[in-house]
Amino acid sequence: MRSFIFAFAMFATVATNAQDSLFISKIFENTLTSGHCYENLRVLCKDIGPRLSGSPAAEKAIQWGESTLRSYDPDSVYLQEVTVPHWVRGNTEKAILTSEEKKSSLAICALGGSIGTNGILEANIIEVKKLEELSELGEEHVKGKIVFFNRPLDPVLINTGMAYGGANDQRSYGAAEAAKYGAVGVLVRSLTHALDQKPHTGSMYYLEEGRKIPAAAISTVDANNLHNAMKSDPSLRVSLELDCELMPDVIQHNVIAEFRGTDTPKEYIVVGGHLDSWDIGEGAHDDGSGIVHSIEVLKNLKDLNYQPKHTIRVVLFINEENGNNGGKTYANIAKAKKEKHIAALESDMGGFVPRGFSMEATDQQTTLIRSWGYLFEPYNVHTFRRGWSGVDIRPLKNGHTALIGLVPDNQRYFDFHHSANDTFENVHKRELELGAATMTALIYLLDQHL
Amino acid sequence: MRSFIFAFAMFATVATNAQDSLFISKIFENTLTSGHCYENLRVLCKDIGPRLSGSPAAEKAIQWGESTLRSYDPDSVYLQEVTVPHWVRGNTEKAILTSEEKKSSLAICALGGSIGTNGILEANIIEVKKLEELSELGEEHVKGKIVFFNRPLDPVLINTGMAYGGANDQRSYGAAEAAKYGAVGVLVRSLTHALDQKPHTGSMYYLEEGRKIPAAAISTVDANNLHNAMKSDPSLRVSLELDCELMPDVIQHNVIAEFRGTDTPKEYIVVGGHLDSWDIGEGAHDDGSGIVHSIEVLKNLKDLNYQPKHTIRVVLFINEENGNNGGKTYANIAKAKKEKHIAALESDMGGFVPRGFSMEATDQQTTLIRSWGYLFEPYNVHTFRRGWSGVDIRPLKNGHTALIGLVPDNQRYFDFHHSANDTFENVHKRELELGAATMTALIYLLDQHL
Repeated sequence: MRSFIFAFAMFATVATNAQDSLFISKIFENTLTSGHCYENLRVLCKDIGPRLSGSPAAEKAIQWGESTLRSYDPDSVYLQEVTVPHWVRGNTEKAILTSEEKKSSLAICALGGSIGTNGILEANIIEVKKLEELSELGEEHVKGKIVFFNRPLDPVLINTGMAYGGANDQRSYGAAEAAKYGAVGVLVRSLTHALDQKPHTGSMYYLEEGRKIPAAAISTVDANNLHNAMKSDPSLRVSLELDCELMPDVIQHNVIAEFRGTDTPKEYIVVGGHLDSWDIGEGAHDDGSGIVHSIEVLKNLKDLNYQPKHTIRVVLFINEENGNNGGKTYANIAKAKKEKHIAALESDMGGFVPRGFSMEATDQQTTLIRSWGYLFEPYNVHTFRRGWSGVDIRPLKNGHTALIGLVPDNQRYFDFHHSANDTFENVHKRELELGAATMTALIYLLDQHL
Repeated sequence: MRSFIFAFAMFATVATNAQDSLFISKIFENTLTSGHCYENLRVLCKDIGPRLSGSPAAEKAIQWGESTLRSYDPDSVYLQEVTVPHWVRGNTEKAILTSEEKKSSLAICALGGSIGTNGILEANIIEVKKLEELSELGEEHVKGKIVFFNRPLDPVLINTGMAYGGANDQRSYGAAEAAKYGAVGVLVRSLTHALDQKPHTGSMYYLEEGRKIPAAAISTVDANNLHNAMKSDPSLRVSLELDCELMPDVIQHNVIAEFRGTDTPKEYIVVGGHLDSWDIGEGAHDDGSGIVHSIEVLKNLKDLNYQPKHTIRVVLFINEENGNNGGKTYANIAKAKKEKHIAALESDMGGFVPRGFSMEATDQQTTLIRSWGYLFEPYNVHTFRRGWSGVDIRPLKNGHTALIGLVPDNQRYFDFHHSANDTFENVHKRELELGAATMTALIYLLDQHL
């Protein structure tokens, strides 16, 4: 009898595996033959474009998200109120390098959240590679100067996200640290491996009690030029002009679609990305791709007549780039309502070919998810590592919700990230579709087996 | 005693593994911080450019290959004579679609090896999806017409190489087959997933006793346009004008560098790619990348003061695209000289991020090579599959030489392959470098352990 039960259990497992494998092949086929994600991305990038939180374009993106989700016929679509900052770049962004020999213009852009220069700010430059150098230099060498942070991304790190993480203290905290020693402004080498003339923006933070000084990113090519110019003329000056400013907060919204579960409708699986983008690109990889990936999960499951056990929520978060108020608000409301989230999956690392997933999950969940690896093997998806999930879903972290990030190949990501290069043309149709199918397959497996 | 031996063996294995892991990390570091492959590729693509076998540019590439290899100080560099075909595209490539409503030009290019049209060839069109349809249609429907082969690549296949393989009978044998039924020419839908206006060339073959008819590739967008135009007007005509021709054979060369082994110098490991390219692009992915990958293997091993056990031969093959006479000649000479080749590694699938290797090897070799998988895991290289190795090294197949192809990610490959899109700008520096490092790591492991 026991061996009969064992044989039956074995049979059931094999049958389940075959069923999973078959359903996943249908997901990939559906996405690759009749996917909408690429066209949805085109509309988001080209018809709406840059959509920083608080802007009218972000509002337009929210409306587009709502109507696009509705078109795939979920059980409900609704908006969730979020208070977001409203920073505007303004019209003037200029940096002129004045050396003994010549004046030349530098490719710069204000960092998000920076104050303006209130006219022209001209000062000498001091170059550093690390924040810690400032305390060694002290006020004596820093006061009255523009600090030029020029540490490049480490090319040896295979994971470019790690290289970015290792350099972004300069952008995030450089101004706050430099202000402590009397600096009047900062220029930060763009956080990219690419050598080009596009500056890459991104958030920066002031200390609450600290002095605020203007902060701009400089392109990698001009960072090299500035470095070389300083070698021949350490007394050179840069004049900086920025008229960016922080406006009063604005009410915008997360967009949420629900596909109700039959077995346990009060248990939720979230899949999402963020609707907002920086203001100088189209937010194609960051994070238009995550948005259309997430919408495609709904489309795929509907197309394939899948009926989920748990309620699947597609969440288009607002304000990831400069505040994460969308992610925080969603988590706060979920907590207040005592909603049980079994898992959340985010795509916010670009629309490149999917390589796997990065998980913040219990040992048991991690083991289970890794046991599905063979189902992804035919699609060249191999990585199921522990690690960072996603900014928007991170506030859901509670020790029992499995938080998972899609990991696309990231060699090219920082070429585009937060820059004018982040356009629709730089997303590849099949790579985007494979990401959407990979997301759908994981949501299906989480719904079936977690 | 036995357990002592066992413990010692275990210790030796762990020590070897640690040594391999360390050396491989140095290979990656060296390539990513001081690699030459990207700059070498720029020179090959921009200073030499398109280099079809038999052309003066191919000759220039051979000279460049020789001097570049020499600059890395191998034990010897020499040329190996190869007789290659010399096909020239000529100056005229035109196709005009004439329907009831209008005349419009179609984006076409002659297939490599095609005869010219000898003036203007105008005829009605018949569209087919498969070669087999021609025998069903018979002379009655085919005679006097231009056959339009319009079967697209299958989007569902994850491996785009499989999709290419599944469609390229149209390009390779379409003209030969159509000629049997009296067709006067063929147009073949470009072998790419991309929807654009770039035609993709490539080899085509006539039957020795068959009638020869002109053959051209048509861009995917114009293939769709032609298909739609035929729906509204099945009687439309296309006039085709090509002045390509086959010239007498030319003597060119494989370029070979030897890095002599200390233990068994008479045992060879080959690493290579092909120097020739199609004439309408820069041959950046196909196969400039493979050339600079292979040269970088030599550079890396020299930079790291590695002394190989076996003799490592870097072979820059000529004439892969339209004849494979370089590969055949190399293998014939190796056989005549009774040289023992233990392994051959080719890179001819593009300069994209490396995903793994495809092997034609014995069970024992395959098992051994797969056992090294964990050494590649930190570099996101996961695939060690049985399958196609490479056109140039394939003639070495003998049942005991391990033949291995580098497998880069291939989602984008056929966007560029054999078209004017295959330019240096479409190769990514880090992705190219990771490929070169992955190649070097495998050559090192083969030399150490095979």
